[in-house]
Amino acid sequence: MSDTTDNAVRAFIEGHRAAFLDDLAEWLRIPSVSADPDRAADVRRSADWLAGKLKETGFPTVEVWETPGAPAVFAEWPSDDPDAPTVLVYGHHDVQPASREDGWHTEPFEPVVKDGRLYARGAADDKGQVFFHTLGVRAHLAATGRTAPAVGLKLIVEGEEESGSAHFPALIREHADRLACDTVIVSDTGMWAEDTPTVCTGMRGLTDCQIDLYGPEQDIHSGSFGGAVPNPATEAARLAAALHDERRRVAIPGFYDGVVELTDRERELFAELPFDEERWLRTAHSRATLGEDGYTTLERIWARPTAEVNGISGGYQGPGGKTIVPSDARLKLSFRLVAGQDGERVQQSVRQWVADSLPDGIRHEITFWGATRPCLTPLDHPYLRSVARAMGRAFGEPVRFTREGGSGPAADLQDVLGVPVLFLGISVPSDGWHAPNEKVELDLLMKGVETAAHLWDDLAGQGRPAGRGSAGRPGADTAR
Amino acid sequence: MSDTTDNAVRAFIEGHRAAFLDDLAEWLRIPSVSADPDRAADVRRSADWLAGKLKETGFPTVEVWETPGAPAVFAEWPSDDPDAPTVLVYGHHDVQPASREDGWHTEPFEPVVKDGRLYARGAADDKGQVFFHTLGVRAHLAATGRTAPAVGLKLIVEGEEESGSAHFPALIREHADRLACDTVIVSDTGMWAEDTPTVCTGMRGLTDCQIDLYGPEQDIHSGSFGGAVPNPATEAARLAAALHDERRRVAIPGFYDGVVELTDRERELFAELPFDEERWLRTAHSRATLGEDGYTTLERIWARPTAEVNGISGGYQGPGGKTIVPSDARLKLSFRLVAGQDGERVQQSVRQWVADSLPDGIRHEITFWGATRPCLTPLDHPYLRSVARAMGRAFGEPVRFTREGGSGPAADLQDVLGVPVLFLGISVPSDGWHAPNEKVELDLLMKGVETAAHLWDDLAGQGRPAGRGSAGRPGADTAR
Repeated sequence: MSDTTDNAVRAFIEGHRAAFLDDLAEWLRIPSVSADPDRAADVRRSADWLAGKLKETGFPTVEVWETPGAPAVFAEWPSDDPDAPTVLVYGHHDVQPASREDGWHTEPFEPVVKDGRLYARGAADDKGQVFFHTLGVRAHLAATGRTAPAVGLKLIVEGEEESGSAHFPALIREHADRLACDTVIVSDTGMWAEDTPTVCTGMRGLTDCQIDLYGPEQDIHSGSFGGAVPNPATEAARLAAALHDERRRVAIPGFYDGVVELTDRERELFAELPFDEERWLRTAHSRATLGEDGYTTLERIWARPTAEVNGISGGYQGPGGKTIVPSDARLKLSFRLVAGQDGERVQQSVRQWVADSLPDGIRHEITFWGATRPCLTPLDHPYLRSVARAMGRAFGEPVRFTREGGSGPAADLQDVLGVPVLFLGISVPSDGWHAPNEKVELDLLMKGVETAAHLWDDLAGQGRPAGRGSAGRPGADTAR
Repeated sequence: MSDTTDNAVRAFIEGHRAAFLDDLAEWLRIPSVSADPDRAADVRRSADWLAGKLKETGFPTVEVWETPGAPAVFAEWPSDDPDAPTVLVYGHHDVQPASREDGWHTEPFEPVVKDGRLYARGAADDKGQVFFHTLGVRAHLAATGRTAPAVGLKLIVEGEEESGSAHFPALIREHADRLACDTVIVSDTGMWAEDTPTVCTGMRGLTDCQIDLYGPEQDIHSGSFGGAVPNPATEAARLAAALHDERRRVAIPGFYDGVVELTDRERELFAELPFDEERWLRTAHSRATLGEDGYTTLERIWARPTAEVNGISGGYQGPGGKTIVPSDARLKLSFRLVAGQDGERVQQSVRQWVADSLPDGIRHEITFWGATRPCLTPLDHPYLRSVARAMGRAFGEPVRFTREGGSGPAADLQDVLGVPVLFLGISVPSDGWHAPNEKVELDLLMKGVETAAHLWDDLAGQGRPAGRGSAGRPGADTAR
């Protein structure tokens, strides 16, 4: 933690910044959209590309792991200290769908640097935040004169995070021995703002689905038949509308079962953050807030379960009018989950609610894309404090703590590996995750590299958890 | 009304049937979709084609009338009897959108004859039912030895019926003198069933619109922002769901203002028709009936105003999931109107309801495509009885009376020209109006020709309405 080390880290990073950004741009050109079956070959290409780069970085072991879906990348670089803790870094190499017509100013898969920002799908979510670890570990070695990291370093970079991580739980169960570690560092979240470095302490869970509704076997004339037969577009709308009651609470029976409510202390901590609603609304590209009665905006997005209509369609979509009763309609819904909720139980509640809501004459099918569990790590955990210190060194100021409204497979890692999950992210809300013109701030990206360069020494200094002979899966001292 | 005439009519039709069907197929190959701006040239080509055929048929006057939208075709063939009534036949030469992917077994604009049916977009709605008048008037002349029709015969065939007839009211006002007549015959409806010839006595009105909803300026991440900002797809769904209450009555305040309720006698007449719900459901390609509480299916589709979701869309439509709050969403709604309702007042009610329903942060725009008034003609009108007799001669059995749930510009003609509107149609419910695989039954199409051939003599025998010196616009003795 000396200034000398800090300067050496900075010098190393400065000297390798250009090549690092060129490499990242090359990766971002691969449209690894896991939700689109037509992009399967690109997702594979992305995995192979990353594996090659991790080898170049110096990881002695690099493997592409197959799943029934998209491949993941695993890498391992043991410490030369047998008593050092082992850290597993998690990220993903797949990205959200993107096309120019969605409102991108430039091609989403043709990275462009402008005004200190790198624009491309995946720049922040998550390729940029995975890739900073490659330069980070090199800076760590260069600045400390080591030939191996101060901690045992493993990486798992999956390829289906943006489409629900359907095969990730099975993958980590299958490879639990290889993935064994003392903590997981998730590099797939963000921080409060450009000028407010923060460490995230938890994520919401997620389960999402498509509901297909079928009415008439074909579109029929609304004058001849309308008003006398069920209309699947109307029924899709009635379902979507019935998701929330008038207080904007989720109205699916059983949805809130088990939800861990916010404590007064947590509400106070949230309230102390410098929240500027006007600024937040600009980041959200929105004109007004709206959500569950009785909760603040931060509470709504970090600590409350929600239901969202991601897509709805049915009937005529062309220009002008067409007076039909459409034959079918569909809804894409996602549910954010918080501690205490179980994804499978929520899915059951949704299935029951849909079945109970539809009239005779409307057939339906529900497809869930998967479920990601919520998770939280206690504020006083020593490894969490290490992350906060490393980030503080990179940013030159103490960090604060937040949660993340988004979802990741962090909880699966926590459950299967039995270790605490920490979060290290330098993305900011304006980065446009899942939106057109996604970008990463280059200065923050380099702070991410710097944080990663400092972190391994600090974590090594915390030692291994008491009572653990080897990196394994003890009791759940971290989950709640 | 002699058997000799009937036989002569049948012989003439038989001799000209093949050429007639070839001509109709040629017309059906023109994709005159008025709702699609890209098809404007095809709609014009359709008008020109029809004008040419009407000249060939013998109409001394044939004109293509321009509108700010699609052109209409006017034709006139005066009677040689100055005391004969004048009849204006109405139809339309534009068609609904259609593409193979909607579920057509053959190309919608490549007519195919199979099992006595002619399949093509517009075969029944409305090119087939316009075109039978060309052979009908020729059969009338051939069988009676006349050189001009027994009545003054006019045709107005518009080009925007399927997109709301936005310019039709102005067109008929502009040309009211040329269109002056003693009655209008609308050839744009159907009959009860293949084995149950019927005459329609009224149509519902229609007004339809698109509602565009705007939330975030771009799609945003549902984890970072969902549950805390308004979602336009959710709001579109809430609007569509709120169209109907739990009794499936339209829940827009003011919607039912002025509605003329069904009389007990009308409900009895409806109930006497041989209605087979299972068969009707097959025709509707539907699995169950559903509609306004307290009314039968026939009452719902013929005599009750309704609201229908013709299309809904917003957010992600591709494969798999995408966890966003979408930036926009839209609804296409249509409202069927009955006697006593005013289209513009209904539009006002809808606008008010939408404005009152949306939360802060959702902008909206409403575009109405137009309004078509409802109409009804009394059962005891002498011209209506003529239509029933002519149809009875063609079919060899007495006809019954129905209404039509669909909408047409009949009421505008009634209002502007001040004359009763009659309906003559041979299409049947299974013809698939506005649906894939639209067809017309060739036997019924030829009965339509035959009815048209008989009608002019019968109508001429009824004379002109008392107190009318010339075809003009007297008091509203027919509307209600």
